[in-house]
Amino acid sequence: MATLRTAPTLADVQEARQRLLGIAEETPIYLSETFSRRCGREVRLKAENLQRTGSFKVRGAVNKLSTLSAEERAAGVVAASAGNHGQAVAWAARELGAPATIYVPQDAPMAKVEACRNYGAKTVMTGAYFEDAMTAANEHVEEIGGTFIHPYEDQLVIAGQGTIGLELAEQVPDMGTVLIPIGGGGLSMGIAIALRALRPDVRLVGVRAGVEGYTIADGIFVKVPSDFTMPLLEDLLDDIVVVSDEEISEAIVLLLERAKLVVEGAGAVGVAALLSGKAGGSGTAVPILSGGNIDLTMLIAVMRHGLTVAGRYLVIRTQISDRPGELIKLLSLVAEERGNVLSVEHHREGMEIPVSGTEVELTLVTRDEEHCSSLLGAMAERGYVVERLR
Amino acid sequence: MATLRTAPTLADVQEARQRLLGIAEETPIYLSETFSRRCGREVRLKAENLQRTGSFKVRGAVNKLSTLSAEERAAGVVAASAGNHGQAVAWAARELGAPATIYVPQDAPMAKVEACRNYGAKTVMTGAYFEDAMTAANEHVEEIGGTFIHPYEDQLVIAGQGTIGLELAEQVPDMGTVLIPIGGGGLSMGIAIALRALRPDVRLVGVRAGVEGYTIADGIFVKVPSDFTMPLLEDLLDDIVVVSDEEISEAIVLLLERAKLVVEGAGAVGVAALLSGKAGGSGTAVPILSGGNIDLTMLIAVMRHGLTVAGRYLVIRTQISDRPGELIKLLSLVAEERGNVLSVEHHREGMEIPVSGTEVELTLVTRDEEHCSSLLGAMAERGYVVERLR
Repeated sequence: MATLRTAPTLADVQEARQRLLGIAEETPIYLSETFSRRCGREVRLKAENLQRTGSFKVRGAVNKLSTLSAEERAAGVVAASAGNHGQAVAWAARELGAPATIYVPQDAPMAKVEACRNYGAKTVMTGAYFEDAMTAANEHVEEIGGTFIHPYEDQLVIAGQGTIGLELAEQVPDMGTVLIPIGGGGLSMGIAIALRALRPDVRLVGVRAGVEGYTIADGIFVKVPSDFTMPLLEDLLDDIVVVSDEEISEAIVLLLERAKLVVEGAGAVGVAALLSGKAGGSGTAVPILSGGNIDLTMLIAVMRHGLTVAGRYLVIRTQISDRPGELIKLLSLVAEERGNVLSVEHHREGMEIPVSGTEVELTLVTRDEEHCSSLLGAMAERGYVVERLR
Repeated sequence: MATLRTAPTLADVQEARQRLLGIAEETPIYLSETFSRRCGREVRLKAENLQRTGSFKVRGAVNKLSTLSAEERAAGVVAASAGNHGQAVAWAARELGAPATIYVPQDAPMAKVEACRNYGAKTVMTGAYFEDAMTAANEHVEEIGGTFIHPYEDQLVIAGQGTIGLELAEQVPDMGTVLIPIGGGGLSMGIAIALRALRPDVRLVGVRAGVEGYTIADGIFVKVPSDFTMPLLEDLLDDIVVVSDEEISEAIVLLLERAKLVVEGAGAVGVAALLSGKAGGSGTAVPILSGGNIDLTMLIAVMRHGLTVAGRYLVIRTQISDRPGELIKLLSLVAEERGNVLSVEHHREGMEIPVSGTEVELTLVTRDEEHCSSLLGAMAERGYVVERLR
């Protein structure tokens, strides 16, 4: 198991950039009007979600694999990951002509496993937990050989991630604050090393997802900076702030709707910190959208939640008499009030439903919270007793 | 009402490009590994969904408004649109210092109306149909004054859209086939005029959404090329193909999941044509992702449908005896088979349910079609009679 003992330097990051040329992308910067208006300062998004394989991880992987000798490459590379790191190693290995074996937990999302396979890697599903994949990967190296690629406890990997800092220094000359997701700490350390050297005046804020254990920012899950890394980060960064799942969800939905970008939870923490007023500093803010690999079922759940919070979904329960025409009467009222019915559920059984009555649950698409209120008001006026569920 | 009588020339498009400089974006091109692999040819995406306001429409609007005199600008501009054109005119008007009034139908999605307002336009909601907004906009011009901006029946608007063609000629020197959405025909005519002049060898394919009336490609809805435009397009384009809502849905989901881009239905038709093998020609294919303004509720529906088709959702119905522990037994089996339960519904009433039984409907997240089969097999083995609903 690799353990980091020395941090890379600006020169290491600059060397990494040379190695990445023509392989990894220089990702674009987008000015976002919506976020600028909401945050009261110019917001420029670093769209690293558009990086090859959908995350910044290819930068570190390409840099690391580029330094392996021909013999080492031929012996193959090994990684344990159910996510971005695995895909990045698989992709970099293909680009640089090394066989790759990626160990993944059994429950890893199929889309991610398939992505590794499509990049030509051998994937091995093993055990229920990430630790099982780690153990298996280490056994592979001991028994079969090959080079284990650690996702962040590696100077070369960190130097690779730091190339984002070099790009920012050129792309956003007037940046005031940069927001960097913190997982294992590789991305934040790399960028901070580059920017502290090139642009010592820029405010650097690390952003963590707040909940222990499972969070929406699943790219950050199970990763914590080591005892070597954490003090270094505290020294390099001006501040480390924490955002909640609720704040991350809102950021994801706004990025989808307004910036047209799919960003995973871990990649949206910078925008979440800005929207919630936790970023501090002044001048142009640059959140790094570190990746876009979010599971679609998770994304649907986040979107539904976001729409509910914005008053664009309304779920209500009411009772109608169990007579022909009563449901039509109710639905006509909803239509008059321009509510768009997504689903109707009938419940004919329950403690509180009179024998002659039926409970109806409606899921409606509404325009905003104001629309919800006027719809609920109109129903009350016609005598419906309405319980709002969401 | 504007009616097109003369098509613009390459020179008009080149002039438009000068006017757009520093206002509209030159949108990026992304190589997509997934689409390239699926289509057996290199696929480069023109990400016009990342254009200001989220669609190509700003190009035409900026070009048109740039040619208005100071007096005309001061008198304001007027448009009828519930979508991309309205947002584009609102945005261009703000950039060029003209007041804008946008007429929208009453049921227009709030997100789009709000976008117009955020760009500083006055929005007027009027009537149930698009035609009502058209009538109101024309009355506004007659009674109050101002310049009506037609979404596509206008030489200057078409020349503006054509600037995409100039960018493509520079960005993708080796392109073999370009796929252009056809709605009113402004985008396809503009691009075709530019590319026919600059790169006569490139295959140009227009793509239409197939269903009359309401379609998922709502940006294309209500727009049909005029009797002047259609013969011109048939002359300029090598082919015009039609894609289905089903094909468009698949394209939207893949663009989200693999390219990390939010693309609306009308913007995904080019990718749909490629995936379904309708594009023809050879060499590098460039679908133009013309816009990203898709309503989030619509997007959720598309994603759910896409996941179901891919076997990543499974909805089943079965019966269990109405005894304590029976539901737990069923759910344990599902967990063993690594199905992830999204919802459980109980039905205790129904013609076909024995008095001692309960019907249970489960919605599960599955990995792929193979996983669905093995899960269904395991249930059958334990004696459950299972009906697959989706």
